[in-house]
Order: sequence, then C-alpha cells, then structure tokens
Amino acid sequence: MGSEVPSKEPWRLTAAEVLPLLRSNKLTVTDYVNSLLERIQARDPAIKAWAWIEPSLILQRAKELDGLPAEQRGPLHGLPIAVKDVILTKDMPTQFNSRLYESETSIAIDANCVITLRASGALIFGKTSTTEFASSKQGDWHQNLTSNARDPKRTPGGSSSGSGVAVADCQIPVGLGTQTGGSIVRPASFNGCYGFKPTHGAISREGLAQWSPLLDTLGFFGRSIDDLDVLADAFRLKDDEAVPPEPFNLKGAKIGFCKTHNWPKAGQGTIDAMTKAQDILRAHGAEVEDIELPNDFAHVLDWHATVLAGEGQTSFLGQYLLDKAKLHESISSYVDNTSQLTHRQLLDAYDNVARLRPVFDDLAKKYDVVLTPSVLDEAPLGLGDTGDMSMCSMWTILHVPAINLVGFQGANGMPIGLTAVGARYMDRHLLRVAKGFGEVFEREGGWEGGVLL
Amino acid sequence: MGSEVPSKEPWRLTAAEVLPLLRSNKLTVTDYVNSLLERIQARDPAIKAWAWIEPSLILQRAKELDGLPAEQRGPLHGLPIAVKDVILTKDMPTQFNSRLYESETSIAIDANCVITLRASGALIFGKTSTTEFASSKQGDWHQNLTSNARDPKRTPGGSSSGSGVAVADCQIPVGLGTQTGGSIVRPASFNGCYGFKPTHGAISREGLAQWSPLLDTLGFFGRSIDDLDVLADAFRLKDDEAVPPEPFNLKGAKIGFCKTHNWPKAGQGTIDAMTKAQDILRAHGAEVEDIELPNDFAHVLDWHATVLAGEGQTSFLGQYLLDKAKLHESISSYVDNTSQLTHRQLLDAYDNVARLRPVFDDLAKKYDVVLTPSVLDEAPLGLGDTGDMSMCSMWTILHVPAINLVGFQGANGMPIGLTAVGARYMDRHLLRVAKGFGEVFEREGGWEGGVLL
Repeated sequence: MGSEVPSKEPWRLTAAEVLPLLRSNKLTVTDYVNSLLERIQARDPAIKAWAWIEPSLILQRAKELDGLPAEQRGPLHGLPIAVKDVILTKDMPTQFNSRLYESETSIAIDANCVITLRASGALIFGKTSTTEFASSKQGDWHQNLTSNARDPKRTPGGSSSGSGVAVADCQIPVGLGTQTGGSIVRPASFNGCYGFKPTHGAISREGLAQWSPLLDTLGFFGRSIDDLDVLADAFRLKDDEAVPPEPFNLKGAKIGFCKTHNWPKAGQGTIDAMTKAQDILRAHGAEVEDIELPNDFAHVLDWHATVLAGEGQTSFLGQYLLDKAKLHESISSYVDNTSQLTHRQLLDAYDNVARLRPVFDDLAKKYDVVLTPSVLDEAPLGLGDTGDMSMCSMWTILHVPAINLVGFQGANGMPIGLTAVGARYMDRHLLRVAKGFGEVFEREGGWEGGVLL
Repeated sequence: MGSEVPSKEPWRLTAAEVLPLLRSNKLTVTDYVNSLLERIQARDPAIKAWAWIEPSLILQRAKELDGLPAEQRGPLHGLPIAVKDVILTKDMPTQFNSRLYESETSIAIDANCVITLRASGALIFGKTSTTEFASSKQGDWHQNLTSNARDPKRTPGGSSSGSGVAVADCQIPVGLGTQTGGSIVRPASFNGCYGFKPTHGAISREGLAQWSPLLDTLGFFGRSIDDLDVLADAFRLKDDEAVPPEPFNLKGAKIGFCKTHNWPKAGQGTIDAMTKAQDILRAHGAEVEDIELPNDFAHVLDWHATVLAGEGQTSFLGQYLLDKAKLHESISSYVDNTSQLTHRQLLDAYDNVARLRPVFDDLAKKYDVVLTPSVLDEAPLGLGDTGDMSMCSMWTILHVPAINLVGFQGANGMPIGLTAVGARYMDRHLLRVAKGFGEVFEREGGWEGGVLL
C-alpha cells in the first residue's frame, strides 16, 4: 500500500489537504508521518518546539491506522496533532515545563479533548513546549528555550509556544493550545499562523493543567481556517443558527474595528496593520466602523489580572506545598498572595465582567465581525519573556471566540496578526467570516513570509 | 512505639480528636488504620462504601508515616482520608463508576487537592463509590450498590455516596466529595454527618472528573465541624475578615430562614426540622426571621438544569465517542442534546444567575447565617435513585458555601439535615457559626441516631 507522490512534500500539506489523501490511501499515514519526522529532524534542533516526541511510538500508531479498513476510519483518520504539554496524555509524560515534573516518566490518562481526538482517528504526535504551568515566563531554569519559527533570536510567544511554532514551521499540521490570557492568539501572531480560542466552555477542559477555571480555554493552531474548521467539527462546535455553506462575501459586510482601551500600548506594527486592514476591507466593498467600547470596559484588564492572581492562589497550592522552591517566583507569589488581593476584589471582578459579557455580545452582533489587535507588535527579541498578553486578555475573560488572522508584518519583516472576535457561541459564524478575510489579508496584507511555506 | 489505649476504639475518633494522638505517638498510624480496617471489614460488606481499597498499601503508608520524626510530620500527619472515585490518585485506579473504566487498572496522577493533602501528611486511604461520573443515578449496570449507613434498604444519596456513608459509619474520619447539584449536602443529610461545600473555586478542581465547570465544587464530609475546620485549614480557606477565636454565641444572633421557591416540594420531615430549628434557636435567644427571596430566584433551578445539560453536552463528548453504549442514557442524552437546548438558553442562564450572586451575598450578610433545607425529606427507600437534589442546587449555582447540619429526624427515624449557607468566601465565618448551631441541634434536634457512634 504505497503512497502516490503528492504534488508537494507531505509536510507542507494542511490538515484539510492531507485528510482526503489519508482516508483514500493516496498517502499512507506512515509516509506522511515520516515526512513530518524528517522536517522535525531538520528544523527542530534549532527551534525546540517539542517537549516530548518518540518516533517509534508515532510510527507504531501510524502502522495501526494504515491497517484500518476504510469503514473503521474516523473523520480525523491519521491526522497528526501536537499537544501542548499541560494536557494529559495516556501514552506520553506530561511535564508542564516544571522542575517539579522534570523527571516525570509516569503515564497518566488522556484529557477529555485527547480522548475525543483519538476516538476520531487522530494520531497524537507528541507534546509541545509550554511556559511553566502555562504562565507567562518560559522558565528561567530551562536551558532548552523554544524560539520563534521565523527568527531564532525572537520569542515564539507563549504559553502555547511549541504548538504555535510547530504548526507555523510545518512540523505538524495542527496543534492544541490553551489560553488563559493570550496564550494561543499571541504565539499565532508571533509565528505567523492561525490560532483559534473558541468560546470559553465550548470544549472540555478536563485533564488540562488548571490555572484559572474562569479563563482557561482549549483551542488550536493551523495554517488555514479550513484546518481550524476540521478541529471545530471534531469537537462538535455548533452555533444556534446554522452557518450558510457559501463563502462569506466581503462586499457589503459590516466590520467593527475595536481598538480597546489598551490601544495606547500598540506599537507601530500593529497600528499599521489595523490601518491597512481597514483599507483592504474598504477596497473590497466592506463597511468599516470604529467601535468605542463603553467606559466600564476600561477596567477589564485589571479584572483579568485580579482573576489570574486570585485563582492562581488556589490552583497552585498543591505544587507549592510539594516544593515551593521549584516553582517560578511569579507562581509561588500567587499562593503567598504577595499582592494582598482580597476575595472581595476577586468577586467584584467576577461580577463586573459577568455584567459586561452580554453587553459585548450585543455590540458584536451589530457587525459581521469585530477586528482588534492580536499583539502590541512583532515578536520581541529574546527568548525568556514570551511577550505582552494585554491585547488578548479582554476576549479571554469575555469568553468570546477569537481567531488570529495572519497577513501583516512589522518593521523587521516578522508577522503581525489581527484578531477576529464575535459574540459567545458564534464560533462557526466567526470561522466562516474569518476565512473570507483571512485569504484576502494573506494576499494583500503585505507579509512577505507567508503562512504556507 | 506501641500506642497507649485511647478511651474509645480508635475508629470512633474524629479527625480533630485523633490528630494530636497521632502527632504525639500516643496512637500510631498503624494501630489507627488497623482499627479502621477492622471497622470496614465488619461493616462494609453490607454497605459497600468503597470502590477501591487495598489494605497492604494503607499499612505500608502507615509504616512510613510512623517512621517520620516529629519535625517532619505535617499538619494532617497520618489522617486517613477517603477520596471519591472521580478524583485522580496516583497510586490507585479511578473508575468513575463507569463501564468505560470498569477494568481500569492504570495509575494516573494526583488531583491537585490530593497533592495538597498528601503534602500535608494525610494518608490517602482508598476510593469511595460514586454515581456514574458523579451524575444522579447509581448506575443500573452496577450490581454492587452502596447503601445508606443507617438503613441498608435506603439510598445513601449521591453522587458522593461512598464518602458520605464511610464517614457517617465511622469507617473513616473524613472524606472528599464533589458537588454539582447536591452531591455533598444530600448524602450528608441522608446518612447523618456534616458535609461542607465551600465557595465555588475556593479549592482547586484540577484532576477531578468534569461535568459542569460552573458548578463542580470540591468539598468534604466529617463527623464534627471541627473536622471540617481541619480540612479547611489544609486547603487554606480564609475569609477577608479574620474569624474571632471565641465560640459563636446563639444569644442575640440573627438567623435568616430561607425556604426558597422550592418549599412546596418539602416533605413533612423537612417541614418539621425547619420549625424545630426555629424553636430551638429562639429558645437560645437568637432572633429568627423568614427570608423572602426576590422573584428572580424562582428561575434559579431551571437555570441550574440548563447548565447541567449545556455543560454536560461538552463534558461527556470524549466518553461518548469512546463508546456511547457504555454511558448511562441520562449522560449520553446530554451529548445528543435530546432536550434541544440552545446556546442562547445556556448563556442566559449564566448571565442571569451571575446577576443574582451579589444580590444573594448582600442578603446573606444581613444575617449571621441563613438556614435552609438540605433535602426534601429522609433518604428514600431503594438504592437505584440517589434522591432529589433540588434543595441544594441553588446554593451550588450561587457559588456560596453550604454546610449540612445534623440533628433532626424523619418519620422513620432517619436523619434529616438543614443547610447553613453564607455569602461567597465567608467559609470560615460559616464554619464558626455552624459549630455554634451544630452542637445545639445535635443535642436538642431530636435525632435519636446521633452522629457520633
């Protein structure tokens, strides 16, 4: 059962491209994963996207999948998926980039999302690097820092560093990440790929490291919106109103540009990308409007920080008691409550932001989509700090779906993304609109790198 | 290092009683656990509280703990703790009372709460029975149904059946449970012990089976409020305002009695308990007042049901895809969305109840404590159905702390509890007040069984 030779190297294929080939035996899973493993071997020693990968396990699973008769093949048959190393897997260790789990070899169970993917026929490929417990630092103790897919001197962003990098670098078609602040959207923007944080709660978070139950959200990376759709199907994301099958038409579309109260922090790259996006959309006949958020929204980033600290105090107690000295100081200080946060402040943050969620939903529904910055600017130089999350945090705590779109670039030719957001549980609508935009931005946004290598 | 003989059999001791004996070697951990194991051997074949228990593992751990020098002993040194079998443990299987995990022998990792307890010196004793994935049925497929600690023909309540029964039956001093509807308070009431559901989010839920992230709450059972305090200390529960050290004085206390909109469902046992509690408190000089909840609260139980169904649809997708036929129909129907729930309904439930949380907090703060029913009535006959959760659900979705207090009984001499609730994150205040009440209710409430055997 040999493969027909596809028109490009298999590792270049997107998930949507490769799935029909795998299902129909035009490409065997074994040949496909061998191509990915070659790409990884060539590229990863410099980039270090993987926290744990075992080719023999991958090849064994590929062989099993190749042996499945057509009628037993799942919708994700043979699709290799990278899993951020804060998500439990039954056949691979989970180490959370923590010194507490540095020598972890024990095998746990599958997180619910991994159960879903395996049951759909996916090939769980390996574990990708993360910042310590998905917090904002890469981990000072760690010598093996992941670098950006486009420039080894720059941060990949975090905390879903490895999944963002591996997907952008064509080492894997799709990867799982989690977002508590900006941990999917930021690395997607920094490395130049699509990143999707669905509505909070739309995918099970059972079996994920927990920092903030109010914020932690499972999402994924891909090199096309179609690939995000593939995983959205697997997780059965569904809007109340069925999404029309025909492509979204930019002409006559109503787009809200939302700079947010955080706009004064935007760098030139992001300022230019927002302007250019408006010009492109207008040129395609879309109606573009600036959204002024009500004043209450000025507090959302403070509430987000309050929730991180308040829920962090509870979430890291176990690890703190195990061995406080092995935790990054930014994490142990939550448990020590060095910011002297009160429960009153935490409850006010919960209650105030809960009031704003339906307000934003109503606002978002006045437009086909809301566009907003993904990041302050290009990925900064240096690998220790994964960058500023403040352009993403609002959408995480408002629980709305958010997609990083690629197409723009900064002063150093590094990619800059913009984020498409929509009302809660309008994930499929947002994916459809984002596909309409994404293709135009990729063509006309000016990024010379390009998401497809 | 032999034990001095305590004045009663060790298995009768509460956690607060046994801890100083264990710390000071007046009772060795080994002698203590042997006493518990004898009690279990005598009682459990009829009651079936345990899903997994391995005496050799317990005795090995006891030996290790006995070998620790005084300065290495944690605050929970040697305290045996039962763990509901939906909470991951690294040295015991977790089976969720699910046919999917019936033959599960794989060892996972410790849930965060278990890490905390082990790091504090506790002895994780075994896994206690639960309904399937902590839902409301005991599991029709399971022939080995847990029965009530006070009457083998009656339900123990659920879903934290085994922990509630094992604690009430003096097989273990304390046990962990989880509550999504009434899964701690109901079995505590049915079996006659204290049960505490802290403020939602006050204890990490990492490593717990997930049904409803909005509702799932970790809590525990004990045979005295002091024992609940012991675990509250271990989990570092702390109010914004420090709780006075002196005992709570009933004289002059202001107590709100809250029958809720669910009162028409109350049975005679609960009606009598509420009346008797008022009489007792008045006789002790407390000021008693009826609380009329605003009309919006009439919808809370509907919103609770909506959240169970909406979040269940997401949470059980993995297991559904693994093997739908091995799930109880009540669970697979969530994934199938047989109730045709819309996201709009789920979001309305979220947003509406979020608005009521601060309203209830303000109301509760007008009183020293709010008293409300725990259950409709005594534990019903039969083991298949674990009873009605509707008296508990409101407090779960409002995220407020709730404690089942014992002391009353129904027509058949079975225990009936009442629930003390307070504002969010006033857990320690509530424990202090509940201790003042609890002792009076135990003495004067009329339950002939008695929480201490």
